[in-house]
Amino acid sequence: MSDLVLLTGAAGRIGTVLRGGLPERGWALRSLDVVPVPDPRPGEEHLVADATDLAAMAEAARGAAAVVHLAGISGESTWPAIRHANIDGTYCALESARLAGVPRVVLASSNHATGYTPRPDGGPLREADAPPRPDTYYGVSKVAMEALGSLYVDRYGLDVVCLRIGSAFAEPTTVRQLATWLSPADTVSLVDAALRAASPGFSVVWGVSDNTRRWWDLSAAEALGYRSDDDAEQYAAALIEAHGEPDPTDPVHARVGGEYTTAAFDAENFQA
Amino acid sequence: MSDLVLLTGAAGRIGTVLRGGLPERGWALRSLDVVPVPDPRPGEEHLVADATDLAAMAEAARGAAAVVHLAGISGESTWPAIRHANIDGTYCALESARLAGVPRVVLASSNHATGYTPRPDGGPLREADAPPRPDTYYGVSKVAMEALGSLYVDRYGLDVVCLRIGSAFAEPTTVRQLATWLSPADTVSLVDAALRAASPGFSVVWGVSDNTRRWWDLSAAEALGYRSDDDAEQYAAALIEAHGEPDPTDPVHARVGGEYTTAAFDAENFQA
Amino acid sequence: MSDLVLLTGAAGRIGTVLRGGLPERGWALRSLDVVPVPDPRPGEEHLVADATDLAAMAEAARGAAAVVHLAGISGESTWPAIRHANIDGTYCALESARLAGVPRVVLASSNHATGYTPRPDGGPLREADAPPRPDTYYGVSKVAMEALGSLYVDRYGLDVVCLRIGSAFAEPTTVRQLATWLSPADTVSLVDAALRAASPGFSVVWGVSDNTRRWWDLSAAEALGYRSDDDAEQYAAALIEAHGEPDPTDPVHARVGGEYTTAAFDAENFQA
Amino acid sequence: MSDLVLLTGAAGRIGTVLRGGLPERGWALRSLDVVPVPDPRPGEEHLVADATDLAAMAEAARGAAAVVHLAGISGESTWPAIRHANIDGTYCALESARLAGVPRVVLASSNHATGYTPRPDGGPLREADAPPRPDTYYGVSKVAMEALGSLYVDRYGLDVVCLRIGSAFAEPTTVRQLATWLSPADTVSLVDAALRAASPGFSVVWGVSDNTRRWWDLSAAEALGYRSDDDAEQYAAALIEAHGEPDPTDPVHARVGGEYTTAAFDAENFQA
Amino acid sequence: MSDLVLLTGAAGRIGTVLRGGLPERGWALRSLDVVPVPDPRPGEEHLVADATDLAAMAEAARGAAAVVHLAGISGESTWPAIRHANIDGTYCALESARLAGVPRVVLASSNHATGYTPRPDGGPLREADAPPRPDTYYGVSKVAMEALGSLYVDRYGLDVVCLRIGSAFAEPTTVRQLATWLSPADTVSLVDAALRAASPGFSVVWGVSDNTRRWWDLSAAEALGYRSDDDAEQYAAALIEAHGEPDPTDPVHARVGGEYTTAAFDAENFQA
Amino acid sequence: MSDLVLLTGAAGRIGTVLRGGLPERGWALRSLDVVPVPDPRPGEEHLVADATDLAAMAEAARGAAAVVHLAGISGESTWPAIRHANIDGTYCALESARLAGVPRVVLASSNHATGYTPRPDGGPLREADAPPRPDTYYGVSKVAMEALGSLYVDRYGLDVVCLRIGSAFAEPTTVRQLATWLSPADTVSLVDAALRAASPGFSVVWGVSDNTRRWWDLSAAEALGYRSDDDAEQYAAALIEAHGEPDPTDPVHARVGGEYTTAAFDAENFQA
Repeated sequence: MSDLVLLTGAAGRIGTVLRGGLPERGWALRSLDVVPVPDPRPGEEHLVADATDLAAMAEAARGAAAVVHLAGISGESTWPAIRHANIDGTYCALESARLAGVPRVVLASSNHATGYTPRPDGGPLREADAPPRPDTYYGVSKVAMEALGSLYVDRYGLDVVCLRIGSAFAEPTTVRQLATWLSPADTVSLVDAALRAASPGFSVVWGVSDNTRRWWDLSAAEALGYRSDDDAEQYAAALIEAHGEPDPTDPVHARVGGEYTTAAFDAENFQA
Repeated sequence: MSDLVLLTGAAGRIGTVLRGGLPERGWALRSLDVVPVPDPRPGEEHLVADATDLAAMAEAARGAAAVVHLAGISGESTWPAIRHANIDGTYCALESARLAGVPRVVLASSNHATGYTPRPDGGPLREADAPPRPDTYYGVSKVAMEALGSLYVDRYGLDVVCLRIGSAFAEPTTVRQLATWLSPADTVSLVDAALRAASPGFSVVWGVSDNTRRWWDLSAAEALGYRSDDDAEQYAAALIEAHGEPDPTDPVHARVGGEYTTAAFDAENFQA
Repeated sequence: MSDLVLLTGAAGRIGTVLRGGLPERGWALRSLDVVPVPDPRPGEEHLVADATDLAAMAEAARGAAAVVHLAGISGESTWPAIRHANIDGTYCALESARLAGVPRVVLASSNHATGYTPRPDGGPLREADAPPRPDTYYGVSKVAMEALGSLYVDRYGLDVVCLRIGSAFAEPTTVRQLATWLSPADTVSLVDAALRAASPGFSVVWGVSDNTRRWWDLSAAEALGYRSDDDAEQYAAALIEAHGEPDPTDPVHARVGGEYTTAAFDAENFQA
Repeated sequence: MSDLVLLTGAAGRIGTVLRGGLPERGWALRSLDVVPVPDPRPGEEHLVADATDLAAMAEAARGAAAVVHLAGISGESTWPAIRHANIDGTYCALESARLAGVPRVVLASSNHATGYTPRPDGGPLREADAPPRPDTYYGVSKVAMEALGSLYVDRYGLDVVCLRIGSAFAEPTTVRQLATWLSPADTVSLVDAALRAASPGFSVVWGVSDNTRRWWDLSAAEALGYRSDDDAEQYAAALIEAHGEPDPTDPVHARVGGEYTTAAFDAENFQA
Repeated sequence: MSDLVLLTGAAGRIGTVLRGGLPERGWALRSLDVVPVPDPRPGEEHLVADATDLAAMAEAARGAAAVVHLAGISGESTWPAIRHANIDGTYCALESARLAGVPRVVLASSNHATGYTPRPDGGPLREADAPPRPDTYYGVSKVAMEALGSLYVDRYGLDVVCLRIGSAFAEPTTVRQLATWLSPADTVSLVDAALRAASPGFSVVWGVSDNTRRWWDLSAAEALGYRSDDDAEQYAAALIEAHGEPDPTDPVHARVGGEYTTAAFDAENFQA
Repeated sequence: MSDLVLLTGAAGRIGTVLRGGLPERGWALRSLDVVPVPDPRPGEEHLVADATDLAAMAEAARGAAAVVHLAGISGESTWPAIRHANIDGTYCALESARLAGVPRVVLASSNHATGYTPRPDGGPLREADAPPRPDTYYGVSKVAMEALGSLYVDRYGLDVVCLRIGSAFAEPTTVRQLATWLSPADTVSLVDAALRAASPGFSVVWGVSDNTRRWWDLSAAEALGYRSDDDAEQYAAALIEAHGEPDPTDPVHARVGGEYTTAAFDAENFQA
C-alpha cells in the first residue's frame, strides 16, 4: 500500500510538528497549505492550494493512502469565517478523499466540540460520555466535522478518525494545560496510530498526553494503538508558582473547554 | 408576555399545519417565507423574506416570544444547497433571536440527524442513546442545527427545543411510517408543548405520534408536556396489504433513518 | 424519437402531478429537484441537482426529447431570490437544452406575467391581447421567461411552449379559482399536448380548465391539441356559500392576476 | 418642482449627448457613472458609483425629479454580464426612485427588445404591434426592463417612459441606419419630452429621427411631445454609393433588429 | 511566427483605433470585448467574452503571437470596481498568455500610475525617475499591472511592455493635453513598436506624441522602435484662446496626473 | 494624543512579538485577528474580526492613534487568496483609518516586493534603488500595498510607513537569514520608530537587523529613529557548519527575495 499522506494545513503549528515526525515513522508526506511550507525536506512533496477548493483537493489527494486534515481556523472566529474554513473545508477533505479513492481520513477535531461538558465526579471522561456540547462557533464546526466524518464512514465505507485535540503546544503555559497538554512527540504518535489502526471505522478520541492531572480518558486512543510518552507535570511547579493552584470550581477547570466557556471569553472576543 | 411567534418556512407543509393549529392554542403568528403565505387569516402577520438573511430575520424577530424555525430544505440535496439553506439558516434563526431578545427557539431537527442508528433490541430508543449519526448531508445539517442550539443555550441563556421530526404528513403512505408518523394534530401539540414548557434549557425530543409500531421513546417529549392523540395503526391494514409486512432486518426498518440509509438511496439521488 | 422528458422541479406540487400522469401518456421521466423525489416509480430516473447550475443541467438534459421546466419560486418573493431562481433558472433550462441538442422546452409561465390586464368587456381574453403587464417580481420573471423562450426559438430553432398557468391545485379553494382553476388531470393533458404538438415554434397559451366561469380563451391551447376534461363549477355552490358571490368590479376578479394586483397584497407581503 | 435629473451612464455615448443638451432645456443634472464624467460643467453634480449598487443609487436619487437610466451594457454580451448590468441595474434604477420618492423614470430600452419583428407590409410599425421578440440576450434584458417599468407604474404609481432607441450615433454609418438613426439633437428632444409629458403612466415609444426611410411609427413618441428635427436622408447618397441599395428581403432590413437577427451575428460573436 | 494579436477591450476608444490601424501594419486581429465589436472587417476574428474570465481568456489566447490588453475601466471608479476589472483583469491577461504559450503581452498602463510625480525642473522626465506614485485607485491598479507584468517576465520569461498612456483622444481638448496627447496614428505606431521590438523583456514607456510642450521623455519608447508623427501644437492657439495660458504652478500642469491629483477631483467624484 | 494602536493580525508570529513589546514602549493595544488572541494582557483590548471587512475595521479603528497592519497571508499563495487577503485587506486598513480619522498607518510590506532585484556590486542597497520587482503574487500584493499607501498620503494626508520586512523569526535558520534577519527586539524597535517618527509622510524602509552580512541599507530606517540592537552573526558559525558557506552567485544570495526567485520555488509550490 502507498505510504503517502496528504497533510493539509501543513505550514501551521501542528502541521510543522507532523512534518518533522511522521517521516521517521515511515510516512511520505505531500504537504499542502495556502502558503508554501518552509524548508521542505528531501522527498517531501509540497503544494500551495486552498483546502476549501474541492477540485484542487481532489487532485492533491490522488494516490494518497490517507488524508490528515489540519487546515482551517484554529480557534474562535466569526461565524462566516468558521463556516467557510472549517465546515466547508472538512467537506472538501472528505469528498476529495472519496473522489480520489483514499480510504482513510484523520480529522483534527477539538475538545471544544464538547467544551461545556462538566468534569465528571468520578473517573476520567470517556468520549462516549461527551456528546456534542460546543462552547463556540469553532466548537460547532468541530461537531459538524465529526458528523461529516460519521456520514462518510456509514455511507461510503471510509475509515475516519477524529482527534479531539487538547492543547497542542511546545509546552504547557497555563495551569489548565497541565491537564490538557498534548506534547509534540505525542501528537506524532497519536496521528501515527490513527493512520495505522486496523479498520477503525468511525472513531473519536481525545488527543492528550498522559498527564498526571489529565481527566480525559485515554482508553479509546490507546485502543487505536496510541501510547503517550509525555506528562505535563514536569511544568507544574513553575506554572503553579506563577498562576496559583487551580480552583476546581472555576469554569476554566470545571469544563472541558476551559476559558472558551466563560462569559468573559465571549465578551472579550466580540467587542471592541 | 407576548404570545407572538415568528414562524419561518410558513408556506411549507408543516408551516401550513401550524398556521392552522397554533392560533387555536392561543398563539399569534408572524408567518415568514420566501413566497407569500396563501390565504392569511385575520390577525396573522405575514412577510416575505429569506431566512438566511440575518438583517431581515433580526427585524422579523422583533417583539416575538419565540421563533419556530422550519425554513430550509426538507430532504437530501447537494452539499452547497444544504449548507446554505439549513446550516446558515439555523445560525440566522438563533442569532436573530439573540439580537432581538427573543428568549426561545424551536428548531425543526430530524430523525436523519441520527439516521444510521440501529433499532435497539430492547425497549424504545431514547434521544440520549441516539447521538449524531447522520445518514445524509441533510442529516449533517440537523446535527449542526442541534449543536448551534446547544451553544445558544450554554453561551447566551436561550431556551432551545429541537424536534427530531419523524414523518410529518397528512397520513402515513409507507409501512415504515406506521412507526414514524407524526400526525398533523400531533405536530401542533408538539410545537405547542415546546413553546410552553417551563425553562426547557436545551432539549432534543423525537417528533412522533404514539403509534403502535413506534420504537422511539416519548418520555422526553412528554416531559415537555406533549400528549399524542393519534396512532398510525388505523392505516396499517391497507398499507401492509399494498406493500407487505415489514422485514425487521431490512435497513429501511432496522435503522432510524429508513430508506435514507440505503445504498440505493445514495445511488439514485446523485446519478443521472 | 426518444420519449424521455427531463422534468425540473419534479418534487413540487405540479411536478408531483406530472410524475403521476405523464408516464401513462407514454413519456419516460427523468425527474430532477434539489431534494430527492419521493417514491420514485419503476423506470423513473431521478437526480438531485440545482436547476440554476448550468453544468448539471446540461448533463441532465442529455438524451432527452424535451425539458419540462417547473423549477423555481412559485409565487412572489424578494427580487434577488426571484431573479436567481426564476430568471437564471430559465436561462439554464433553455441553454442546457440547446447544449444537449434537446429540441423542445415547455416552460411554466404564469398568468401573473400579465396580471394587471383587465378583464375584457366582450369575449374571452386571448393571449395575443395580453402582452406583458406583470403584477409582481414573480410576474416579471415570467415575462423574462417568455422572452428567453422566444429568443431560443428565433435564434436557435428550438420549439418552446409557454404555459401561463392559472391556479393549479387539487381543487379550487377561492371564488376566483372558479374561473382560473387548472385541474390535475388537465395539467397532465396540457403538458402532454405541449410535448406532442407538431412544430409549435414559439407558443404562449393559458393553462386553465374549461371552467364555466373562465374568461381566458382556450383556442390557442386547443390548437396545440389540449382538451380540458374538468370544470370548477362543481365546487361553485360550496365556495360561494362560504365566501359570497364575486363582485366583478373587485380587482381580485377584474384583473388577470387576482389578489396579486391589490395594494393590500403588496403591503402585506413586504412589511412585518 | 425640482428640475434635477439623475442621469446614469452619464459618461457614455448617449450620456455625453444628454449632458450637452439637457441643461439648455432647463434641467439640472446629477451625472453618475462608474468613471468620472469628463469635463463637468458649472452647476453639474457628478458622482462615481455603480448603478447596480442599490444603496448608492438610492442615495444618488435623493431630491431628483426624475431618473434617466442609461447605465448598462449597450449591446450583446454574455448572459451573466447582461443579466447583472442590465436587468439588476434596471431594478436598482426603479427601486431607488421608489425609495427616494422620485416620481418619474425614463428607461433606455432598445429596438432589440423586439428585434425579430418583421417589417410590416403596410404602414409604419406601431409599438403596440411589436410585442417582445428579442434578438439577443441584450434584447431579453430590454424586455425585462419594460416589464419592470410596467410593474412600477401599476404597483407603485410611478411614471415610466421606455425609449426603444434605434441607432443613436453622431451620424448614420450603414444603410440600415438611414431608417433607424436617432440624431443627437433628437435624442435630447426625445428625453426632454419623456421628462415633461403630463402623466404618461407607462409608455413605450420608438426612439428614432423622422427619417425618410423610417418604418417605425412616431405617433406614440409625438403624443409625449416629441418633435424630430433630423432626417438621415442627407447621408443616403454617400452611404448607398459605398454599400449599395438595401435589399428589403435581407434580414438586416426586413426585421426591426437588423444584423442582430442574422445567423452570422450569433456565430461571429460567440466563437473564437 | 503567427501574426495574430488578441486585442482585449477591442470595442473601446483605443481598441477602435487599433482595429483600424494594426491590420495595415501586418497584424491579424482577434478582437475581444464584452460587447460585439461593431463593423468587423474581413479577416478580423471577434468574440464576446469577459476579460476577467480566465477560462475564456485562455481559450481566446490560443495561437496568438501577442496579447494587447486594453480591457478594464479607463478612469477613476470605486475600489471594488477597479480592483475587479483592472487588477484581476490584468492577472487574467498575463496568466492566459502563459497558459496558452503566448510569448508577449502589451499592457495599457497609464500616467496615473505615477500621477503625483512633479514636473522636473530640468529635462524631460524619464520613466525610471517616475516610480509608482498613483493619484487614484485607477492609478493603483496600473501600478499593480506593471508589477504583475514584471513578475511574468522574471518568473516565466514572457516579454511584457507597459505603455503609460497619456491622453489618447482624437484630438486634444484641454491645455494640459497639449503636453500629454497621444494621437491616434501614434497610438498605432507605439503598439506596433511594442509588438515588434526584439526581446524587450520588461519595459515601461510613456505613451505620448512628440508634442512641442511634452515633458515626458521619449527615449525609452524610441528604443523600442517608436517614432511619433504628430504634435499637439497645431491645436495650441485655439485651446489657449479658449482656456488661457497654462499656469505651470497649477497642479494640473505641475504633476504627471493633471487634474486627477487635485483635491477638487476627489471631492467631485465621490460625493453627490 | 491617544496612544492606542490598532494591531491587525495580532495573533500571528509578528503580532505576538509586538503584543509583547509595544506596551513597554508606552503603546496601548487593540489587538484584532480572525481568532482570539491568546492570553490577553491587562489593559489590552482585543476583538475578533476579519481585516477585509471594511465596516468592522472602521469600527475597530475608532479612537486609535495609528493602525499597524500585519493581517494577511504571509507568503506565496494562489492569486485569488493573495488578492483578497492582502490587496483588499490593505485597502480596508487604509480606508478604515481614513474613515475613522486615524492619522497614521504602518504597513507590513516585504522584501519580496522587489525580490528579483540583484545584489549591488558596491555598497548597501537603498530602498530608492529597489523599485517594484516582485518575485511572487505575494510580492505583487506588497507592491500594491505600497502604492495604496502612497495614494493615501498624497490624496488624504495620512502618514504611511511601509516596512519591507526581511526574515522576522525568533532566530535565523538559514544562511541567507544571516543577512536578512530581523530580530524580535528589533521588530519592536522598528515599529515603535515608525509610530513615533515626526511627519514621515510616505516612507518605505527595509526591516532588518544590523547584521554583519546585511546588504540592505539602514539609513532610511534610521532616519525614522530606528536603532538595531541585534546581529545574526552570532548564529553564523553553526549555520555555516550545517549548510556550508553561501555561494554569492547562487540566486538565493544574489537577489533580494532569496529562494522565492528560484525556478525550483515556483515548480515546487504550484505542482503536486
